Amino acid sequence: MLFYDLVNARGAHFSPNSWRARLALLHKGLAFEVRDVLFGDIPGINAGGDKLTIPTLSHQGRLVTDSWAIVQYLDATFPDTPRLIPAGAEGHVLKFFQYWAQTTLHAGIARLILKDLHDSLDPADQAYFRASREKQYKATLEEVQAGREERVDAFRKSLQPLRLALGHGPYICGEQPGYADYLAFGAFMWARVSSPFALLAEDDVVHAWRERCLDLYGGAGRQERAA
Amino acid sequence: MLFYDLVNARGAHFSPNSWRARLALLHKGLAFEVRDVLFGDIPGINAGGDKLTIPTLSHQGRLVTDSWAIVQYLDATFPDTPRLIPAGAEGHVLKFFQYWAQTTLHAGIARLILKDLHDSLDPADQAYFRASREKQYKATLEEVQAGREERVDAFRKSLQPLRLALGHGPYICGEQPGYADYLAFGAFMWARVSSPFALLAEDDVVHAWRERCLDLYGGAGRQERAA
Repeated sequence: MLFYDLVNARGAHFSPNSWRARLALLHKGLAFEVRDVLFGDIPGINAGGDKLTIPTLSHQGRLVTDSWAIVQYLDATFPDTPRLIPAGAEGHVLKFFQYWAQTTLHAGIARLILKDLHDSLDPADQAYFRASREKQYKATLEEVQAGREERVDAFRKSLQPLRLALGHGPYICGEQPGYADYLAFGAFMWARVSSPFALLAEDDVVHAWRERCLDLYGGAGRQERAA
Repeated sequence: MLFYDLVNARGAHFSPNSWRARLALLHKGLAFEVRDVLFGDIPGINAGGDKLTIPTLSHQGRLVTDSWAIVQYLDATFPDTPRLIPAGAEGHVLKFFQYWAQTTLHAGIARLILKDLHDSLDPADQAYFRASREKQYKATLEEVQAGREERVDAFRKSLQPLRLALGHGPYICGEQPGYADYLAFGAFMWARVSSPFALLAEDDVVHAWRERCLDLYGGAGRQERAA
């Protein structure tokens, strides 16, 4: 099993969507080999075929792209491993959680670290990254990140549902981590690897949860080179 | 089965937490009788006993209070009815959804309709409501609600994860409504019964979903007297 993942200039894996899928693989105890790529390498992974994104999983001649599709594929292909995306209503509620992570965590974090993230990338990726993100945000990377010391409190406040959920146990999913934990933790790994900016106050239960997640599976997150 | 629920001056049921539990009862097809109360009546429901909140369910001599506890009680007591709160990780993710509804929907809606809500209450409840909410918000009800025309766009934007989730099917839980739908819909029933203010744009998929929810179970929501 080959796992295509993005690396920055320091060789560290920063993609939040990859971290969720990587932790799903670890949760299931599946062996995989990582194939490091830059943004510029992505079109070459499947030249002439369907457009891929990162993460992409290659397994028995099949390419599976998108973290949600990868985890569904793993659930279906390895039915003896713990299932991470339930069927029916519960799977839809989990998908809502992914949308919450995307609109609150990813969007919130991006506005706090976007320039640092750019600077952490391989020089070969920086021009692409700046052009695509400045088009998306209709502002320079410097403008997007400006004033973050004043804005970080609003980001921390936006974590309130996560904070309340962590009042029940060590993980969002209860006594043991589950895919909702990996969805949220991926966003924090993205920040950790890309920027030294302190997203969380040290007395926040979300901070303590992040520390626990960093220790999972032999410290997979903690071992990744932080910014 | 007796269901204690709050009514306003027009005799309409407005509690968002009651609406979630009421829809859970309807989803399960359980018969129940509603006992209308004012805020001032709550201490008398169980005089001398544990403090109750609304909703409270009375069943076979037992009083169950708090919407989450009520639905868990119904799941356990009527195992032949559709289960609404799953065990394990899935139940924790659903609880996160409840926290999201509380911190985003309830808190967001309150700041748009709090004065209207006060005005809709039975005169006997208005002084209590004003004093407790003004203490909570550290502002007058008029100040909390002021400027809502300028603030409603930010509220609509905060619904983005709900909007994305509704891209997959008619309900948050997929093809059929589930407890996440009732958790979110309860907040919109609270607003509908208490205030004429338009929370949603008519071309919003959240608006179309709310219309579908209003029609559920013989139009239980639609039949309630709107403000």
